[in-house]
Amino acid sequence: MTLMSVSPRPARRFDRGPVVLGIDPGTASTGFGLVERRGSTLVSRGGGVISTRAEEPMERRLAAISSCLGELIAEHRPAALAVEDIFFGRNVRTAFAVGQARGAVLATAGAGGIPCFAYTPQAVKLAVCGSGRAGKDQVQRMVAALLGLGDPPASDHAADALALAICHANQMPLRAEASALGARIPNT
Amino acid sequence: MTLMSVSPRPARRFDRGPVVLGIDPGTASTGFGLVERRGSTLVSRGGGVISTRAEEPMERRLAAISSCLGELIAEHRPAALAVEDIFFGRNVRTAFAVGQARGAVLATAGAGGIPCFAYTPQAVKLAVCGSGRAGKDQVQRMVAALLGLGDPPASDHAADALALAICHANQMPLRAEASALGARIPNT
Repeated sequence: MTLMSVSPRPARRFDRGPVVLGIDPGTASTGFGLVERRGSTLVSRGGGVISTRAEEPMERRLAAISSCLGELIAEHRPAALAVEDIFFGRNVRTAFAVGQARGAVLATAGAGGIPCFAYTPQAVKLAVCGSGRAGKDQVQRMVAALLGLGDPPASDHAADALALAICHANQMPLRAEASALGARIPNT
Repeated sequence: MTLMSVSPRPARRFDRGPVVLGIDPGTASTGFGLVERRGSTLVSRGGGVISTRAEEPMERRLAAISSCLGELIAEHRPAALAVEDIFFGRNVRTAFAVGQARGAVLATAGAGGIPCFAYTPQAVKLAVCGSGRAGKDQVQRMVAALLGLGDPPASDHAADALALAICHANQMPLRAEASALGARIPNT
């Protein structure tokens, strides 16, 4: 199992804002991205990929993903975790595999008391690119631009995870306002 | 979250044989069944259902399943965990939901160092009833007969989990023999 970090930035603990952890679950590669909200600005706290080897038994691969995620949660104490919503266009085999990885991720977040929020791919693209039909390249470029990264994330999975984190971080003020008014935006 | 036990038997620690934990994963109801192999005899060590409430967020439901399973593993130290193989006949929505629960289960087993084995529903029915086409009722009656239970398990999920555990417990001598000869029967 490897944990590859891209463009992390040192945290300035004294003025730390809420952090969102975006996760793009997959058995072979689980992308992660940490985005901190400082007032109206979003700052990358790093991102990368948790990789597991196909030769390993499935239970060990999922335990490795859970363990790495547990470390990220312990270190960064995210206020929320954002994942992709269930995408029913995929075939049964893919749905099952993604479901397994997502189950390991959500169980770990739940054990750590981190609330989880799901967004459709269209909602994420709309939040990041201004269009629900944007391509992979455009998402990667916009993630870099919005977070002030020198280069787009090298990994698709990390870029998708950062985009998910941006999408939720953008909604935080709206959710806080709704909550103050006694309303609630559903998590999923 | 509730953990409902059916027909547990006190363990006689001094002559304890290997225990197999069968799991029938589901978000609302996860069946579990513990079967101990004592020589050529199979003995029930109990079974039941881990239930979670639909009103709870998914991450908490999966964390509760993982936590209950962790307790079962810590208490009974199973030599193996048996789950149903991926069943691709189901629709995408079901595959995703079952996949999520299965992912939480496998990650927990992996973290506890418990090897996992998957069996198709047909293989389980064949092992328990002598026919791959047996119905639910027949499985429940045969589980009770094979384990010497007074009554069939009240829950379908617990019965399916016990059937999975019986199926793997039956294969243990064959797997041990294959392993001694340097061969290996694949886990899934």
